[in-house]
Amino acid sequence: MANSNATYQDIANYTGFSKTTISRYFNRPESVTEENREKISHALEVLNYQSNKVARILARGRTEFIGIIVPNMYMSFYDEILDQFLKTYDKYGYKFIVFSSNGNEESERQYISELLSYHVEGLVMLSHTIPSFELSSYGVPIVGIEREDLYISSVNTDNLEGAAQATRLLCDAGCEVLLHINKEGDDDRTPAHRRIDGFLKVCRERNITHRVFTYGQESDYQDLQQRITVLVDDILTTWPGWKKGLFCSSDSIANIVLNDLFRRFGQLPPDFRIIGFDGSSLADQSVLPLSTVEQQVDQLVDSAMDLLVSQIRERKEPEQNSVSEPVHRTIAPVLRQGATV
Amino acid sequence: MANSNATYQDIANYTGFSKTTISRYFNRPESVTEENREKISHALEVLNYQSNKVARILARGRTEFIGIIVPNMYMSFYDEILDQFLKTYDKYGYKFIVFSSNGNEESERQYISELLSYHVEGLVMLSHTIPSFELSSYGVPIVGIEREDLYISSVNTDNLEGAAQATRLLCDAGCEVLLHINKEGDDDRTPAHRRIDGFLKVCRERNITHRVFTYGQESDYQDLQQRITVLVDDILTTWPGWKKGLFCSSDSIANIVLNDLFRRFGQLPPDFRIIGFDGSSLADQSVLPLSTVEQQVDQLVDSAMDLLVSQIRERKEPEQNSVSEPVHRTIAPVLRQGATV
Repeated sequence: MANSNATYQDIANYTGFSKTTISRYFNRPESVTEENREKISHALEVLNYQSNKVARILARGRTEFIGIIVPNMYMSFYDEILDQFLKTYDKYGYKFIVFSSNGNEESERQYISELLSYHVEGLVMLSHTIPSFELSSYGVPIVGIEREDLYISSVNTDNLEGAAQATRLLCDAGCEVLLHINKEGDDDRTPAHRRIDGFLKVCRERNITHRVFTYGQESDYQDLQQRITVLVDDILTTWPGWKKGLFCSSDSIANIVLNDLFRRFGQLPPDFRIIGFDGSSLADQSVLPLSTVEQQVDQLVDSAMDLLVSQIRERKEPEQNSVSEPVHRTIAPVLRQGATV
Repeated sequence: MANSNATYQDIANYTGFSKTTISRYFNRPESVTEENREKISHALEVLNYQSNKVARILARGRTEFIGIIVPNMYMSFYDEILDQFLKTYDKYGYKFIVFSSNGNEESERQYISELLSYHVEGLVMLSHTIPSFELSSYGVPIVGIEREDLYISSVNTDNLEGAAQATRLLCDAGCEVLLHINKEGDDDRTPAHRRIDGFLKVCRERNITHRVFTYGQESDYQDLQQRITVLVDDILTTWPGWKKGLFCSSDSIANIVLNDLFRRFGQLPPDFRIIGFDGSSLADQSVLPLSTVEQQVDQLVDSAMDLLVSQIRERKEPEQNSVSEPVHRTIAPVLRQGATV
């Protein structure tokens, strides 16, 4: 693809401006009046100079970049979120520079510094490690999804309501003891922690026997499977003959439990009901389609882009130096019944 | 994060050059001698000007961007490849602008045009739609992975060898009839098609009864499951009592077959052996850990980056205008025995 860029002289000839003005346009755009910038910009398009986005960035201050930092790519929830962001290109034209941090805080700071140096117009944070107070100090439009969000705008699933729906479904299916598995040690302010609150709320309303189990930072998938096997042993021993309803805080955990039961019994035993959370592709790929609380990824992402674009627009307002308050939006989850409740 | 950029005057004072020279450095770097560029570049770092990457791009012609186009994110193979590319940041410092094309050829052309306009230093193509002949005409360093690659450099798994290993494993496990499921209608030149060749080669060597089944462009996961159920019916009816060995061209298909059998029989029947391909996370998450032919994603990506960086370096050589021949590298797959063979 030959680079057929016009020279400064060509642009000067076309517009009638001096070469110095053209140079200033690229170099110190703010020193050229808006009217003249428009003329030069038009000339560039006519002269087929426009394919050089780097020059455009300098000229207009718009990189059309958004940076995204995901904690990892092995949880399908993050893949689906990322995919949905990439699809917004058609609507907004933003390009995404993507980093996967593996939960390493120092790496994340380095990534953010890189992204800021490229003048990204906004940041999307899915990773949890850097506190929102620090993120808010970077002075760049930013939106968090399903993470601690005290000082930044965010979009989250209504986790309390989703958990309550899942728990009610298990009650209504005639379960006599309700169990919840969640990850231990997570910051109390993370949205996923509210799933425990929703579970406990319904258990107390219905006055039903219940227990919350937690698992730790298991180092890999095999360790996690082993931890779940011990937990299933415990459940089978403690409540033999009871109709057991198990609400798992992710489809991944629900899938491990279901696999464990199939290996033991060749089926989901009739006295065992399971529901997951996320509505990820794993819920379909499981040995039985999992019942799950679906996070509406398309709406989470639409709403996040909407917040981000509003913030970007605000920055562009002249004399708009006041920092606006963080905005928090909540997306309703959708109960999806598979074959496990 | 306050932008504490130095002014042209500051840089001129520090270096002893005129402001015009500083301006030329940003504006037309080729008009400044390399020695002087080095001096100015050093001054920028001292004066903390370096955080403005956009200026650096203009000054040095290095965007440090690589564009990646994946066909989709719902196949975990692509997620794992993408994740591995993002991790190469530590080694190479390249940032990745990512697009997901959903197999739409026109979208892909638009993405590539965007990427070229940002002066990406290289392209990684995982999607299949645009022929390599066209890709090679863009004149940008490019590497394909597991796609048609006649006119571009590429890295592929040794699919023939992987399929042969899988088929031999089924033979050695005492299977009396060998079956292979692959996707129909794929271009004969796609690397995955060679899995059929590897399967047939071993079946003929061992002189064993065999058949190849194909499935079409099923529109979604449910359709694919239904297609596989019909196929399993067919297999059970045609070879009752035979010890059946099934080699699937992906872990996703192997997982669907295994789930189907578990729903019918509560177990993997003793006369049924299954092996998948990819070594994706799904192989672990299946109701029984799947035997599979693992594509070594880390080596595929290392090798792809190595090829890309070589091409980028070649471009930088002055007077190196000759286009080098495409280089094709092959990565050995690794047989991983789970619980299904």
